[in-house]
Amino acid sequence: MKEVAVIGIGQTKIDEHWDKSLRDLAGDAALSALMDSGLEKVAALYVGNMMSGSANRQQHLGAYIADWIGLRGIEAIRLEAACSSGAASFRTAVMAVASGEVDSALVVGVEKMTDSPLQEVTAALATAADADWEAGQGLSFVALNALIMNRYMHEYGWKKEHFAPFAVNAHTNAIHNPFARFHEPATIENYLKAPMINDPINLMDASPVGDGAAAAVLLPLESLHNPSHKKIIKVAASAAATDSIAIHHRKDPLFLRAAYNSGKKAYDQAGLNPSDIDLFELHDAFSIMAALSLEANGFAERGQGPRLALDNEILPTGRIPIATRGGLKARGHPVGATGMYQIVEVVQQLRGEAFGTQVENARVGMSQNIGGSGSNIITHIFQLI
Amino acid sequence: MKEVAVIGIGQTKIDEHWDKSLRDLAGDAALSALMDSGLEKVAALYVGNMMSGSANRQQHLGAYIADWIGLRGIEAIRLEAACSSGAASFRTAVMAVASGEVDSALVVGVEKMTDSPLQEVTAALATAADADWEAGQGLSFVALNALIMNRYMHEYGWKKEHFAPFAVNAHTNAIHNPFARFHEPATIENYLKAPMINDPINLMDASPVGDGAAAAVLLPLESLHNPSHKKIIKVAASAAATDSIAIHHRKDPLFLRAAYNSGKKAYDQAGLNPSDIDLFELHDAFSIMAALSLEANGFAERGQGPRLALDNEILPTGRIPIATRGGLKARGHPVGATGMYQIVEVVQQLRGEAFGTQVENARVGMSQNIGGSGSNIITHIFQLI
Repeated sequence: MKEVAVIGIGQTKIDEHWDKSLRDLAGDAALSALMDSGLEKVAALYVGNMMSGSANRQQHLGAYIADWIGLRGIEAIRLEAACSSGAASFRTAVMAVASGEVDSALVVGVEKMTDSPLQEVTAALATAADADWEAGQGLSFVALNALIMNRYMHEYGWKKEHFAPFAVNAHTNAIHNPFARFHEPATIENYLKAPMINDPINLMDASPVGDGAAAAVLLPLESLHNPSHKKIIKVAASAAATDSIAIHHRKDPLFLRAAYNSGKKAYDQAGLNPSDIDLFELHDAFSIMAALSLEANGFAERGQGPRLALDNEILPTGRIPIATRGGLKARGHPVGATGMYQIVEVVQQLRGEAFGTQVENARVGMSQNIGGSGSNIITHIFQLI
Repeated sequence: MKEVAVIGIGQTKIDEHWDKSLRDLAGDAALSALMDSGLEKVAALYVGNMMSGSANRQQHLGAYIADWIGLRGIEAIRLEAACSSGAASFRTAVMAVASGEVDSALVVGVEKMTDSPLQEVTAALATAADADWEAGQGLSFVALNALIMNRYMHEYGWKKEHFAPFAVNAHTNAIHNPFARFHEPATIENYLKAPMINDPINLMDASPVGDGAAAAVLLPLESLHNPSHKKIIKVAASAAATDSIAIHHRKDPLFLRAAYNSGKKAYDQAGLNPSDIDLFELHDAFSIMAALSLEANGFAERGQGPRLALDNEILPTGRIPIATRGGLKARGHPVGATGMYQIVEVVQQLRGEAFGTQVENARVGMSQNIGGSGSNIITHIFQLI
């Protein structure tokens, strides 16, 4: 198996892009990544996307985007694993390059959510849950996360205000990221006054819908003998795991078992442990998911995720910086693209290009993308070499 | 890169399965394949599906199906490449096993098309074409193929009745396949009297919608030192290529360039040429696609696909048997599952298990799955060892 390196990254701003189509967004990110890599073409394209079939009446994004960016003819497919579609496409590209079947790959995560009415987006997001046993009962994704957060507060004694630092950190970091959806500072007061969506989740606990695309270019590490790139980022680990799709089938709904399992596999592959990780782009679709992710991946004891946040350990200067470019909460969460934004941001940090929120001496970064309510979790570890 | 073998296959009958859900169908095929393989579990699941997001309001089929078949926790994703989703999932599994990232894989292609009204299925199928420049102009998939067939008849002088043998061969072969959608014999008279759908495509030129699932289990060939399986089928080649998503962007709309390119790569990988292929499960979604596939893959000169059929060379006893278990026309075409049905049928032929339509001494079989109007084409060659 060949080792794999990321040699190019690209992204669009996350926004309500009324003037850009799905292919415009994907193309912009893809061409930026190619330009950054110095390559003019690649052998294969992997597209991560969740809902273009319903939101844009367009599937078949592999051929669609390859054609649009001037790479007509290359191998190209789309990967879907709900909100973890981005990391799923990256992992598929890693395996393709590692196997030797393709000698270079472009990965694009893209989602254009604002083409369809919001109630349809909510319905499309619910297709990530169990259609018969969750969505069919009227449970939206916010509702599922509200049930988890309520139970968590009950079990561990946290109050609503203890989750404020997750949102404040995300919004504070996003101010420095030109690609982020929001650039407004947030305070604990903003958090406490935010309108309730689904008790206990308020507007500041939830990530926003948006349009965006992020991309990366991969090559076998061995092909970089004469590196023209100043900094080479190695894919030190790539791992995935699932859990029951319906939350009520889990013995312990407060433990992200798939995060633990894919995280453990990733640590083992890289020969590292949590204390080696300089920053962690986790999947803070809701504040409660940030807390559970920190716990499942060994950064906090069970029930103690909010403690890390309250102690400022999640800031860029803390023990385990998260959401360093704004996270899902403030950079934005165009679902099928999110996993690729996380990866692009880790690469920026390791290259030392994270203007304004640079983690000092970052050499090892981890990204973790969650599909559904923790039912599909994909973890990557990157290393500066 | 490791060599890969198919050690288990499974399929459901293609039908209007009013009494079975999407997960029932996928589960039945998956568990049949596992049972056939002798394995109780695998490391990863790859699901091919095109339209469950709209037709069944359920996406995230990786986690969904892994959970259902008792393999909760394993890595699992869904692949989509329109009607070539089945072969896309198989190729992804081949790369995963070849890379060493996973030591065993299950692939399931599944589609349940009859849960939603037919006009919605037609609209969902059109998401495989270009939403802006084809579907948005009112072109359905039948209409796109009708334009191609009309042009082909004009260029090469064939008449409508010359396409009859494609449908007759498919229906005659399907009679022996218990998993086929149709078991009615067909004659040239049936073909000539069939109701017109979109001139020149009549009901006997077009494959039917249906529900079904087909599955396969893959292992590295090197792991089979003590083969408990009587017959091992090696994946001798796996290759993919795209073309423009919109037909009007092709210089020559009567040439399946992506079929030629992926076919050529596959022949090169396997070290074979067309005369070595004992049977060819091609993508006869419409009669015209069968003709164009035979030509692009080196079995007929340009414009001479119908000649092979008229000369009976496509029968199980002919020079290049096609649709040996009924093809898309008569076995059925549950879109995201079709590529896996083709692969399962090639494996059956190479194992000598194609009761009623067995190709004598079949040792090398090829399958080719087409997404969109020839915009994504994935080719596999299998070899009995």
